[in-house]
Amino acid sequence: MKDFMKYAIKEAYKSLENDEVPIGAVIVIDNKIIAKGHNQREKSQNAIRHAEINAIEKACKKMNSWRLDNAELYVTLEPCPMCAGAIANARIKKVVYACKEKTSQDGLCDLILSSKRLNHNTQIVFDEKYSEECSNLLSTFFKNKRNKNN
Amino acid sequence: MKDFMKYAIKEAYKSLENDEVPIGAVIVIDNKIIAKGHNQREKSQNAIRHAEINAIEKACKKMNSWRLDNAELYVTLEPCPMCAGAIANARIKKVVYACKEKTSQDGLCDLILSSKRLNHNTQIVFDEKYSEECSNLLSTFFKNKRNKNN
Repeated sequence: MKDFMKYAIKEAYKSLENDEVPIGAVIVIDNKIIAKGHNQREKSQNAIRHAEINAIEKACKKMNSWRLDNAELYVTLEPCPMCAGAIANARIKKVVYACKEKTSQDGLCDLILSSKRLNHNTQIVFDEKYSEECSNLLSTFFKNKRNKNN
Repeated sequence: MKDFMKYAIKEAYKSLENDEVPIGAVIVIDNKIIAKGHNQREKSQNAIRHAEINAIEKACKKMNSWRLDNAELYVTLEPCPMCAGAIANARIKKVVYACKEKTSQDGLCDLILSSKRLNHNTQIVFDEKYSEECSNLLSTFFKNKRNKNN
């Protein structure tokens, strides 16, 4: 099995190059990457342009289906409520994330993905392998931002 | 003040004309509608194309900003977790919805919009004025679907 998180991290670096919060995602079906996405909120000035949403839209287009039942999504950061909801709406089978959102103590991501409302369950996995790398990528980005603004 | 929900209902009828689950939304700033959206999931085969997401994207484009701080969103049905998350991400000030989602006993919409993670609060209002109309629109749609499939 490929190390898919590496490809999600590559996507996060694309955000970083554009001075965006570095978050990346890839969607995998049958052990193949079918879609990639990175955060583009600032460039697009569009509140919904998170990495996961961009990847989900591309995957739906590629599969010509709003249902991505057999898909797995790899993302560098724990999904926000919007993205967790989009993952559930697309019936994605499994989400793997590399680092925890600092503000995620409210447990919303887990609550949304385990909700019974869609008669669908998405398995959610916290994979620590690249946790430090993804976390450092984010903290360095915000530290540099603060230094620029001081 | 205009009866903005009427315009959201007009949007829902656009979905109905395309044999989509009839849900509509409008976004208002300074007492003017700046964006409209209706559910287009089936037509687009795209899991994220809910009414609220379509309206938020149009509003961001119009305002050239991912922040819609002074905006109010009127929607015919209580937002799903994805849309509630998008509303919070766009920093929308107030959401008014006309009927309750049958599966919303989990309280996720309220939890997402009252979360402290973004240091932002969206006021959420259930306005019963068009509740029956919006609810009947949905139940008639699903009843007709079931009859066709039998």
